[in-house]
Amino acid sequence: MKRVYLDWNATTPPLGAVVEAMAFAAREAWGNPSSVHATGRTARACVEDSREAVARLAGCDPRDVVFTSGGTEANNLALRSAFAEAGTANVSTLVTSRLEHPSITRVAEELDRAGRARMRWVAVRSDGVIDLEDLERALSEGNVRLVAVQAVNAETGVVQPVASIIAAARRAGARVHVDAVQAFGRTEDVATEADTRSLAGHKLRGPKSIGALLTRPGITISPVLLGGSQERGVRPGTTDPVAAAGLGAAARHALASPARWRALGPLREALEIGLLRLAPGARVNGAGAPRMPHVTNVAFPGWRGPELVAALDLEGLAVSAGSACSAGTAEPSAVLVAMGDPEAAASSVRFSLGEDTMAGDIETALAIAGRALGRFS
Amino acid sequence: MKRVYLDWNATTPPLGAVVEAMAFAAREAWGNPSSVHATGRTARACVEDSREAVARLAGCDPRDVVFTSGGTEANNLALRSAFAEAGTANVSTLVTSRLEHPSITRVAEELDRAGRARMRWVAVRSDGVIDLEDLERALSEGNVRLVAVQAVNAETGVVQPVASIIAAARRAGARVHVDAVQAFGRTEDVATEADTRSLAGHKLRGPKSIGALLTRPGITISPVLLGGSQERGVRPGTTDPVAAAGLGAAARHALASPARWRALGPLREALEIGLLRLAPGARVNGAGAPRMPHVTNVAFPGWRGPELVAALDLEGLAVSAGSACSAGTAEPSAVLVAMGDPEAAASSVRFSLGEDTMAGDIETALAIAGRALGRFS
Repeated sequence: MKRVYLDWNATTPPLGAVVEAMAFAAREAWGNPSSVHATGRTARACVEDSREAVARLAGCDPRDVVFTSGGTEANNLALRSAFAEAGTANVSTLVTSRLEHPSITRVAEELDRAGRARMRWVAVRSDGVIDLEDLERALSEGNVRLVAVQAVNAETGVVQPVASIIAAARRAGARVHVDAVQAFGRTEDVATEADTRSLAGHKLRGPKSIGALLTRPGITISPVLLGGSQERGVRPGTTDPVAAAGLGAAARHALASPARWRALGPLREALEIGLLRLAPGARVNGAGAPRMPHVTNVAFPGWRGPELVAALDLEGLAVSAGSACSAGTAEPSAVLVAMGDPEAAASSVRFSLGEDTMAGDIETALAIAGRALGRFS
Repeated sequence: MKRVYLDWNATTPPLGAVVEAMAFAAREAWGNPSSVHATGRTARACVEDSREAVARLAGCDPRDVVFTSGGTEANNLALRSAFAEAGTANVSTLVTSRLEHPSITRVAEELDRAGRARMRWVAVRSDGVIDLEDLERALSEGNVRLVAVQAVNAETGVVQPVASIIAAARRAGARVHVDAVQAFGRTEDVATEADTRSLAGHKLRGPKSIGALLTRPGITISPVLLGGSQERGVRPGTTDPVAAAGLGAAARHALASPARWRALGPLREALEIGLLRLAPGARVNGAGAPRMPHVTNVAFPGWRGPELVAALDLEGLAVSAGSACSAGTAEPSAVLVAMGDPEAAASSVRFSLGEDTMAGDIETALAIAGRALGRFS
């Protein structure tokens, strides 16, 4: 059975160059980068080489790259740092929306519960875009310390108006964090004007256990984990030169990737048209919004998303309902609920293509979908 | 120039089997372990296979293994969890000592500063062993929630009387966390009776970006990072099947490692005797205490530790002054200061052997030390 992987937003297959760079580093640069001897310095050089590659991809200075264990830790670090010095009097506001990843929304809820931040949830339009008017309203209420917004939604592929959001926040004197995990390596538009940004290695064909928080010069980050003085005291724990080497190779590859991802547009269109034809009544979530060219998130009214995913998997097609991060919880997609469509939240399936997806994969995917939808109807 | 690596306590060279397991997983089990489709399930199986290997090494149930980004995060998780539900009234006590790793001492200081824990620092004997009488006194003061103690000191190799400490804490109704990072894979005595234990992949020839917190059944862990529901909601962020595969291979190897590390005793003796002969006035820190057979930490009065390390490195010998985690901070070893010997803290060098160290390496190391000490005298 030919298997087709259309779940690139959940994770991407590591590049051959990434696997090779990691194996090489494991043999040649395995030292502790904090050790002062030659073995340590070789490991340190490997880490710094990776930092430069990530900085080049992100359009920032290598000194503004903090390596973390992944996107989740980078988001935690950004949000908690912004409210680290908050006193109990005159608690300032954190503005975000229910479109965000749980590593944003759950930290926001915790900061609110602990009295460190006052939460202001911005309204979401039915097409999955942040409601800019409500954002302006939130900013006009004053005392906003941070706006946290994603560059691209993982589930729908909807692109948020990050430039407008940053401009509005600047006018109000607020800091902006952009979760750019789904943007790096897929578009050149990686919100270089944001105060902090997060990146995850495994969304751009690198290793899973490394990510980065990117900061603008002058932004101070307070550590969440405490321990040694690695990463300028911001992120303790032995920095991994092997994971860093993998991320560096992925970042170098990603410099030229956006064109490859943009080229997926026609394949995505073919898939979308084919799916809508197979399932009368099906509709595309976020269809009216600017979307990344590699994602389609389709509601199949009358079906249950997780069951359809299981049926497609049996036939060899890997897709998802909701995000993998909340898999097993059996809860409907918080993103689609935020878009005001509970029916879609229960019945939708995400198909996410990637730079290696070929026309034949789409044909196979549609054939599989036809069988699965036919069997259930 | 033949280089000799005697800094195994800083980090260990990854096993060939670890590198191969990681490369294999990167090609065959790279999915998101939270994805429900076949690609995700293969990755999940890889993670669970590793969890079983770690559990076997640790003598616990696989369900009691929480994967983290390393030892630092495991220590943070253990300490913060123990005080997660602490109210402001009747703050309970955290008992630990200045022998601990910064990921223990700095979290302890922060819990104290935040009013979540009351700190009680236990006295340390001049041989580097926890003062058991003072520990009993601390426990008798009442309201102790947690005792945090290391199994083995990273700098001196001194073995702590963990069984006695656990017994005393149990009598007082206190929980015990054992930082066993320097014990796993080197001794069978891995404190299986402790309530929580930490493990770091790279101290047992595995990858640097993975570690584990091991819990006793019934111990509740509260997450430090917030996000998705991975690792039963205790540690969010995509679990890395590639790093897990490496750790699994390392854990399987480590099952038989303690005998190999014990066999280092005679080599360590030869090194120690040779060093003391080369440098009149030199002395071994923690000499009177039970010590691991692969470490010697030698004070060279009149010398500066970091300068001696640099001189040895120039000749091809990799050793360290203080721990790598605080390298670059130029502060004297907190461990040797806690042992009440500021002169040793400034003038000491740690030599840590490992299972691959050969008699010839010790001969080379002594020849190098002879030249370095001769050049400086």
